[in-house]
Amino acid sequence: MSTMRAVQVVGYHDNLKMAEVPTPQVSEPWDVVVKIGGAGVCRTDLHILEGQWAEKSQVRLPYTIGHENAGWVHAVGSAVTNVKVGDKVILHPLITCGLCRACRSGDDVHCANSAFPGIDTNGGYAEYILTSARSVVRIDDSLEPADVAALADAGLTAYHAAAKAARRLTPRDTCVVIGAGGLGHIGIQVLKALTPARLVVVDRNPAALELATAIGAHIGVLGDEHQVDAVLDLTEGLGAEVVVDFVGENGSTSKGIAMTRAAGDYHVVGYGENVDVPTIDLISSEKNVIGNLVGSYNDLQDLMALAATGAVTLHTQKYALDDFQQAITDLDTGNVRGRAILVP
Amino acid sequence: MSTMRAVQVVGYHDNLKMAEVPTPQVSEPWDVVVKIGGAGVCRTDLHILEGQWAEKSQVRLPYTIGHENAGWVHAVGSAVTNVKVGDKVILHPLITCGLCRACRSGDDVHCANSAFPGIDTNGGYAEYILTSARSVVRIDDSLEPADVAALADAGLTAYHAAAKAARRLTPRDTCVVIGAGGLGHIGIQVLKALTPARLVVVDRNPAALELATAIGAHIGVLGDEHQVDAVLDLTEGLGAEVVVDFVGENGSTSKGIAMTRAAGDYHVVGYGENVDVPTIDLISSEKNVIGNLVGSYNDLQDLMALAATGAVTLHTQKYALDDFQQAITDLDTGNVRGRAILVP
Amino acid sequence: MSTMRAVQVVGYHDNLKMAEVPTPQVSEPWDVVVKIGGAGVCRTDLHILEGQWAEKSQVRLPYTIGHENAGWVHAVGSAVTNVKVGDKVILHPLITCGLCRACRSGDDVHCANSAFPGIDTNGGYAEYILTSARSVVRIDDSLEPADVAALADAGLTAYHAAAKAARRLTPRDTCVVIGAGGLGHIGIQVLKALTPARLVVVDRNPAALELATAIGAHIGVLGDEHQVDAVLDLTEGLGAEVVVDFVGENGSTSKGIAMTRAAGDYHVVGYGENVDVPTIDLISSEKNVIGNLVGSYNDLQDLMALAATGAVTLHTQKYALDDFQQAITDLDTGNVRGRAILVP
Amino acid sequence: MSTMRAVQVVGYHDNLKMAEVPTPQVSEPWDVVVKIGGAGVCRTDLHILEGQWAEKSQVRLPYTIGHENAGWVHAVGSAVTNVKVGDKVILHPLITCGLCRACRSGDDVHCANSAFPGIDTNGGYAEYILTSARSVVRIDDSLEPADVAALADAGLTAYHAAAKAARRLTPRDTCVVIGAGGLGHIGIQVLKALTPARLVVVDRNPAALELATAIGAHIGVLGDEHQVDAVLDLTEGLGAEVVVDFVGENGSTSKGIAMTRAAGDYHVVGYGENVDVPTIDLISSEKNVIGNLVGSYNDLQDLMALAATGAVTLHTQKYALDDFQQAITDLDTGNVRGRAILVP
Repeated sequence: MSTMRAVQVVGYHDNLKMAEVPTPQVSEPWDVVVKIGGAGVCRTDLHILEGQWAEKSQVRLPYTIGHENAGWVHAVGSAVTNVKVGDKVILHPLITCGLCRACRSGDDVHCANSAFPGIDTNGGYAEYILTSARSVVRIDDSLEPADVAALADAGLTAYHAAAKAARRLTPRDTCVVIGAGGLGHIGIQVLKALTPARLVVVDRNPAALELATAIGAHIGVLGDEHQVDAVLDLTEGLGAEVVVDFVGENGSTSKGIAMTRAAGDYHVVGYGENVDVPTIDLISSEKNVIGNLVGSYNDLQDLMALAATGAVTLHTQKYALDDFQQAITDLDTGNVRGRAILVP
Repeated sequence: MSTMRAVQVVGYHDNLKMAEVPTPQVSEPWDVVVKIGGAGVCRTDLHILEGQWAEKSQVRLPYTIGHENAGWVHAVGSAVTNVKVGDKVILHPLITCGLCRACRSGDDVHCANSAFPGIDTNGGYAEYILTSARSVVRIDDSLEPADVAALADAGLTAYHAAAKAARRLTPRDTCVVIGAGGLGHIGIQVLKALTPARLVVVDRNPAALELATAIGAHIGVLGDEHQVDAVLDLTEGLGAEVVVDFVGENGSTSKGIAMTRAAGDYHVVGYGENVDVPTIDLISSEKNVIGNLVGSYNDLQDLMALAATGAVTLHTQKYALDDFQQAITDLDTGNVRGRAILVP
Repeated sequence: MSTMRAVQVVGYHDNLKMAEVPTPQVSEPWDVVVKIGGAGVCRTDLHILEGQWAEKSQVRLPYTIGHENAGWVHAVGSAVTNVKVGDKVILHPLITCGLCRACRSGDDVHCANSAFPGIDTNGGYAEYILTSARSVVRIDDSLEPADVAALADAGLTAYHAAAKAARRLTPRDTCVVIGAGGLGHIGIQVLKALTPARLVVVDRNPAALELATAIGAHIGVLGDEHQVDAVLDLTEGLGAEVVVDFVGENGSTSKGIAMTRAAGDYHVVGYGENVDVPTIDLISSEKNVIGNLVGSYNDLQDLMALAATGAVTLHTQKYALDDFQQAITDLDTGNVRGRAILVP
Repeated sequence: MSTMRAVQVVGYHDNLKMAEVPTPQVSEPWDVVVKIGGAGVCRTDLHILEGQWAEKSQVRLPYTIGHENAGWVHAVGSAVTNVKVGDKVILHPLITCGLCRACRSGDDVHCANSAFPGIDTNGGYAEYILTSARSVVRIDDSLEPADVAALADAGLTAYHAAAKAARRLTPRDTCVVIGAGGLGHIGIQVLKALTPARLVVVDRNPAALELATAIGAHIGVLGDEHQVDAVLDLTEGLGAEVVVDFVGENGSTSKGIAMTRAAGDYHVVGYGENVDVPTIDLISSEKNVIGNLVGSYNDLQDLMALAATGAVTLHTQKYALDDFQQAITDLDTGNVRGRAILVP
């Protein structure tokens, strides 16, 4: 039996550990084995090590971590028609059943029977990963797996929220993006591609605002105590038709709702605090609070189409797979610019 | 100058008073004077007398109260083409400008320059009322103004929420209605007319549940401490695709959100307490909290079409205009069955 | 190897023939074998025997005919999670791939790799049929396979068009149904369940109009030379917001478009003649001509939900499987009332 | 009484004639008098002179021609709140009633009681024009009336079709534009602003294709006998999700429908020939044929928002009002590059 290197969670509050494990094999008709080209190192991985996901995921240790994966198709099951060996692919973070009502409606993220590699089954800090034909998206020849891997989850979440938000935006509208960090950075690029609405970005960090306007935001607003007034001033005192909040903590929810125009949508993407709003305010202004999860398989296809034209790009900092501990440490200490990627 | 009887607010915390005032006249091209056939007596009228609206409305006393009005067209301005003298009409609660972006989009409820007769200008506890061509909806020959007047505001609010909720409902879905009182009663009839989805009604009052199932709800659930579990039991543990909350207090918001399925909509219609929900819950389940205000002019046209076929009916208790104090007292003491209507 | 009875096409312009063939077996994880409870005998079956489908289907003779099937799950593959042995099911007419863009979007009818049992592979005039987990829809306990089988294709086509049409209909709108025959009969019931719009049915046959109003149509219009004027008279000279044409020949397309209001939708379901309309007419009135194919898997789920409540019913005339020739002959000579069903 | 210069139709098949006529005055509350800054000279004006519109418009001669107008607000009626004297404005081509169902739904183009200045009442080849508050759209400070006047009708038609088409387009889709002339040129710019879908432009003229790609089209296809195959080659043999046909004659309708993918939309904008397509083709492929008229007031607001950012521009050739005959002659003989504009 062939083996491979894989970085595993061996215990909570322990360091990750490199192990030699069996290389995954195709056994079912829809199985796809992907040779990893890049695996994103995400803040969620730090939370896993702290044990925050232990109860929810019920995963049995040791297992291989890593939920943002891209690479090359290495082997396919007998029923796989959408990819062939050698194709460059990015992996949707979920493996979904294809039979439940959500899957049959294109809304596979709400699949009733999904698995989440890197969270509740073996992930991509490894040489190979086992996934399904339902989870692989071919990427354009011009793209490299290690460059796009981090779009698989963080980027896909930003895409999903931005695309949902963009649906109602017209050339006369204003869209406020709260938080120009990792997700917000992608969200701004997606909104720029999907809508001519005016984009106003709010962030506490002047450098982030500068970057935001460099990639297409029309106006940057400093996230200080005047931020709500600043947005109202830009919108004749009425607020923005749509607000997309990539922060979700430190008061951003009440500020975000206050920046939203009557009959407007406030999108929650980042999380941390409670949305706490009087029903009378929701009613008299007829505002909506819209939840957002990661994107669907179709969303990932759409995002890859934008990536193929260069409309969405990502800054990455690459590490050899053996340097996994360095990547984790750098992320934890704030020393990663853009996204950290492990390359086997 | 001709005069008429009108019931006026003369002071907050004072009783209403009958007065002899000038009969309204047509002076602008779009003006419409309506002879009142029925004016609904609403709980909001009690709140006005308690002074709760004084600051918000900035109305100058004395003025004529009454915001749920129907009757016959008495006189029209030179530009009025949609109604003629003698037509039976119901009045949209707002007088809207027709020029702002909201008005131009059919969303006149969010008009930037609206007036609200009975709240901030003279209303319908009177023999005549001045309104606009933009606010009058002809009703079917088979309907009488006094029978439908209460649909002008309370009914219109219920219609608007129910119609918005129904848009996404399929024959396989479940819709929960929380509260089978005045608004909920109309909401159930509207949902029944617009969607084949299963209707589950939650109310604390067994008699209200009985009435709800009599008018078409499929299942009644007692609004006790088991209500959330009862709805989950009816939906394979997943919750309803849509929940419409006509209560909005005493814990109904958290219960309503808990009854909502992942990717579902929780509609706020009634108000009182805060919606207070962790962002992580909105995100991981991708639920939406949807605000609802009174319906548009188009909504009122649609509601009147349903009323014309008998799909939506209302129980009313009529009083002569001179008996206004009795109507107010009966409402305040819980002695009105259905809606109280003043008939001049 | 076990065998079963199956009615096969042995040659074009030949009669069907009963044969003893191998009973289908589960070999792939998503395979489902269904014991037939009823198989609809459809006019398309007559066309197959005339060779009209030979070139398009490229099917190799002999093969088992029958594309409207329902029954009980007899065996399932290892990956099947949505049904279990013994479940009562109806079969979507297509076996779809689940991987192409259409399948991933819930629009499986446009699957890039579908098979069509009874047309291009073995169908349901037999004791058992091989299908896929993606094609089986569980039916309510109260329904019997032989009673609903004909909803699998004819009914599903009618459902799909009616449900698409209903999406834009409001209580103030009029919907014209042209043709109250087999499909139209189902379409009327579906529209009645999905929308409170006024339903006007046009048919040449007074008896069909009588039946149409008995099942819920509001008005019947005789399909003679006055039919367009009759519809215009009912709609203030403007036409209906939506027209659904289940005929598609003998001039129904130009009449249907003439009955459609400016900015309205004319739905083509039946076929035969050309739609031939000046571009200037489409433009000055901004009308839409909407194509309609059979419904999706989700549509079939929705239709079965309506059938479960009794909102959609079908008249059937049952034959033993051995009497297949009688059923074919009766259909060909116009001696079937409702739909003919073979029961093994 | 003050007078002004105005260019009038004095007889069909006669030349236009300069006349001294009364300057229009405000008499009704919603009246707006606009000082003309630019009036587009359109091919429709040539057709008017040929008498093609005589019967349809029923206009009484002499009257002032010109239906693409922009300028400065000169006087307003007592009820006008959306513009003030001195504002730069463009005029929606219709004066609409504001009371009919279409107007109340934001779909004012289908107004039941509209007037069309320049066609059936006095237009803008003059120093001043009388219009309504419902027809004036303020333009950005950076825009000049004479530069945008031609967007009032031709541009608005292109915007409307392109914006309707864009609604369903995703980053993975292809949109074909047939005809890169006057309207198509605007349509391409609008599509570019509203969607990241791939834009393929078909035109017989290589120079037009070059211009099309210069303003953002991704691919130009020569409109020769290979055009359908060329589009199929670009789309894996399947066709484009959306085709917008700005030509509508010389076979473009059948070619356009052939270029449309199954379940796709073919938009008719240009006109001349018949759409003539077998119902069986519409059904088996489930294609839609979508009519398109000029845009609504909201569309014009949106278009002006795009013009304000420079996303949509127009080449114009300006003439003094006194040189009206030269402009007409140049247009008739093909000597206008872009659009001819009269400047009083």
